[in-house]
Amino acid sequence: MIKANDPSLKSWIEVEKDSDFPIQNLPFGVFKTNEEDARVGSRIGNKVIDLNALYVLGYLENLPFKATDFKTDALNPMMKKGKAATRDLRNRLSKLFNTENDDLSSNKHHVDQVLIDVNQIEMLMPVQVGDYTDFYSSEGHATNVGTLFRDPDNALLPNWKWIPVGYHGRASSIIPSLQEIKRPKGQQKPNDDQDPVFGPCKLLDFELEMAFVTYDGKPLGENISTDEAKDYIFGMCIMNDWSARDIQKWEYVPLGPFLAKSFASSISPWIVTMDALEPFKTKGPKQDPEVLPYLAYKEDAHYDIDLEVGIIPENSEETTVCKSNYKYMYWNMSQQLAHHTVNGCNVRCGDMMASGTISGEDKSSFGSMLELTWRGSKPIKMKDGSERKFINDKDTVVMRGHCQANGVRIGFGEVVTKVLPAD
Amino acid sequence: MIKANDPSLKSWIEVEKDSDFPIQNLPFGVFKTNEEDARVGSRIGNKVIDLNALYVLGYLENLPFKATDFKTDALNPMMKKGKAATRDLRNRLSKLFNTENDDLSSNKHHVDQVLIDVNQIEMLMPVQVGDYTDFYSSEGHATNVGTLFRDPDNALLPNWKWIPVGYHGRASSIIPSLQEIKRPKGQQKPNDDQDPVFGPCKLLDFELEMAFVTYDGKPLGENISTDEAKDYIFGMCIMNDWSARDIQKWEYVPLGPFLAKSFASSISPWIVTMDALEPFKTKGPKQDPEVLPYLAYKEDAHYDIDLEVGIIPENSEETTVCKSNYKYMYWNMSQQLAHHTVNGCNVRCGDMMASGTISGEDKSSFGSMLELTWRGSKPIKMKDGSERKFINDKDTVVMRGHCQANGVRIGFGEVVTKVLPAD
Repeated sequence: MIKANDPSLKSWIEVEKDSDFPIQNLPFGVFKTNEEDARVGSRIGNKVIDLNALYVLGYLENLPFKATDFKTDALNPMMKKGKAATRDLRNRLSKLFNTENDDLSSNKHHVDQVLIDVNQIEMLMPVQVGDYTDFYSSEGHATNVGTLFRDPDNALLPNWKWIPVGYHGRASSIIPSLQEIKRPKGQQKPNDDQDPVFGPCKLLDFELEMAFVTYDGKPLGENISTDEAKDYIFGMCIMNDWSARDIQKWEYVPLGPFLAKSFASSISPWIVTMDALEPFKTKGPKQDPEVLPYLAYKEDAHYDIDLEVGIIPENSEETTVCKSNYKYMYWNMSQQLAHHTVNGCNVRCGDMMASGTISGEDKSSFGSMLELTWRGSKPIKMKDGSERKFINDKDTVVMRGHCQANGVRIGFGEVVTKVLPAD
Repeated sequence: MIKANDPSLKSWIEVEKDSDFPIQNLPFGVFKTNEEDARVGSRIGNKVIDLNALYVLGYLENLPFKATDFKTDALNPMMKKGKAATRDLRNRLSKLFNTENDDLSSNKHHVDQVLIDVNQIEMLMPVQVGDYTDFYSSEGHATNVGTLFRDPDNALLPNWKWIPVGYHGRASSIIPSLQEIKRPKGQQKPNDDQDPVFGPCKLLDFELEMAFVTYDGKPLGENISTDEAKDYIFGMCIMNDWSARDIQKWEYVPLGPFLAKSFASSISPWIVTMDALEPFKTKGPKQDPEVLPYLAYKEDAHYDIDLEVGIIPENSEETTVCKSNYKYMYWNMSQQLAHHTVNGCNVRCGDMMASGTISGEDKSSFGSMLELTWRGSKPIKMKDGSERKFINDKDTVVMRGHCQANGVRIGFGEVVTKVLPAD
């Protein structure tokens, strides 16, 4: 077991019972305060740990980092040091904040410089994303979409169980939680026998996804096998891959989704490391037909992560509209990364790869309004009495995720996004 | 007229008659030598101009640049300064290297530091590409592909004349001329009634494209109009958007091309500025049906650029297989950029947007082997007597492009790529 994951560890920082951030988590992110620019941080309970301050005070000595790895606006320089280095860093944090170690806790002056209340900081984009890839790896979602838009009797396309289908997404518009988005405008074709029209999207949707972030991969022309994949994955976050269904329907043939997705993808700002998620590995579904050898895998590479989505109408309370789990994926991250690189495509530090919408078998586990309301035919009742077919202006969409086992809860926090009206 | 474009200008650097790089061009690129790391350069004739040396020697004073804008491995820092700054820089170069100015030419010691023979340098990737977008804007190409793969009577899909169709491509695998590529491996399904197989691509193809590079755009949520587009485009290069046709056919439904394209896209290493291309603007085709208002444009935004593709079998001579022109585009760059941002998608300094394969009406102008050999049914004869349906191992593909008017030839140089066998 990775030492920092030991369920018996306790921190001298107070951690509430249902916190996503016990000492066993130690995620990484980028934050700023009113006084100071962007820095790298971690988190325990409701305290943000300023890694730049820790570094300057000498608590990170004998680790292969330098000041500019932490006093910066992205995790990339830190991640560039590779898996062994970031693992050692997490272990160091685990040691420093453990009740049994008073190197830091005994120095109140230092503690004041290192810990900041979570209410006093703003979380920024954690990574500079080189390329963003979106997979389509949930059988439930692919089946629902195929049933809704094509043929219920042949909902999955012939390639779906052979290939972890994916496409290139837009990296520039990935934004952190709490950044508001504007309803996008674009071409739609509401009537088959009329010309297309231009205007604000009418069918704005969320997509519940998880995304992983990579270390530097191999050079162009080399591939990463399923066995090697875990060495190239740094950690994960939740992603709301916003979708404009009406724009998508008109534009996506033959080259795939484009403007229907590129206006925004919102992520939870703490990257939870694969090391922290290690205890929550679980078996994936039986894959039938048997996959081609380059997609076969030995080690479990699915993860048991509870997910939920809520909608908060303006000035109202939240209604939970979906409860799902990341373990419902048909294709796992090792297979996704092996497939992505099998043609020699190079992966770089900070690349982000998302799961695609995560939908289970049960209707309450569908990961988009498209599926939950069955294309608007079954509106969802909000607690305030209003109904939703898709997302309204001024609605706020919240996604949360966490794992739990052996008394330890490792969570991702939230991704919270308010939708503003189109200009 | 932009002063630096004056056809009467002559440089004190020797320029051969058919050079792509007279003093009216002054493209930008990144190069290195055996002795020194990456730097920003320009070019006249067969001399590379070391902009870092020019800066250090004081010849770029009163321009808004600093040393790190030129002593770096990408044009991005320089481009970050915006259009007015890069235009002033090009004008300064035009003045310094003009026969009528001896500020630099009279100082042999300085000239030796600033000019390097083109044979003594290696050209690198000119820009750090944030996001790469590939359009599909040639009517000839879209018609050919639709005829080959779908329905000759309805070759263009219903959205094609309404939307400048495009998709997100892979930025990490964009490489400069002279970098060799390996034949990619991947899943193919040669027989409809048999399972897919894995192995080296059998139908490796080039795609003749032009790409443009952007300045920083507007913030997320704002759009760039067709009128504004020219202020956000820095320059252009030639792109060979390598394609694996057999991988593409099996993977691309429903989310578009992925591994069939992401193994490599090769570009010519000099970015020719839009300012240098200004005299070669030309009228585009009549667009019928009339486009939606956000895609309407006033100023000509098509360019008359002659293009050609050659294949060089190993140890043999080149056979020209295609002669085309960039003016054959249905959708121009202003429309592409306006469409790309109309949903609020943000564009960043260094983003690259390619045209899609450029095919004219005439068969000799088709921009891919798929079209030239009509899916392999009409092989092309090489000068050495061999035949090509697609690209063979050890073949080298060369693309060239230039404009010509009023006795001035502005060219892009070449993008040259040799194909190595799969591992």
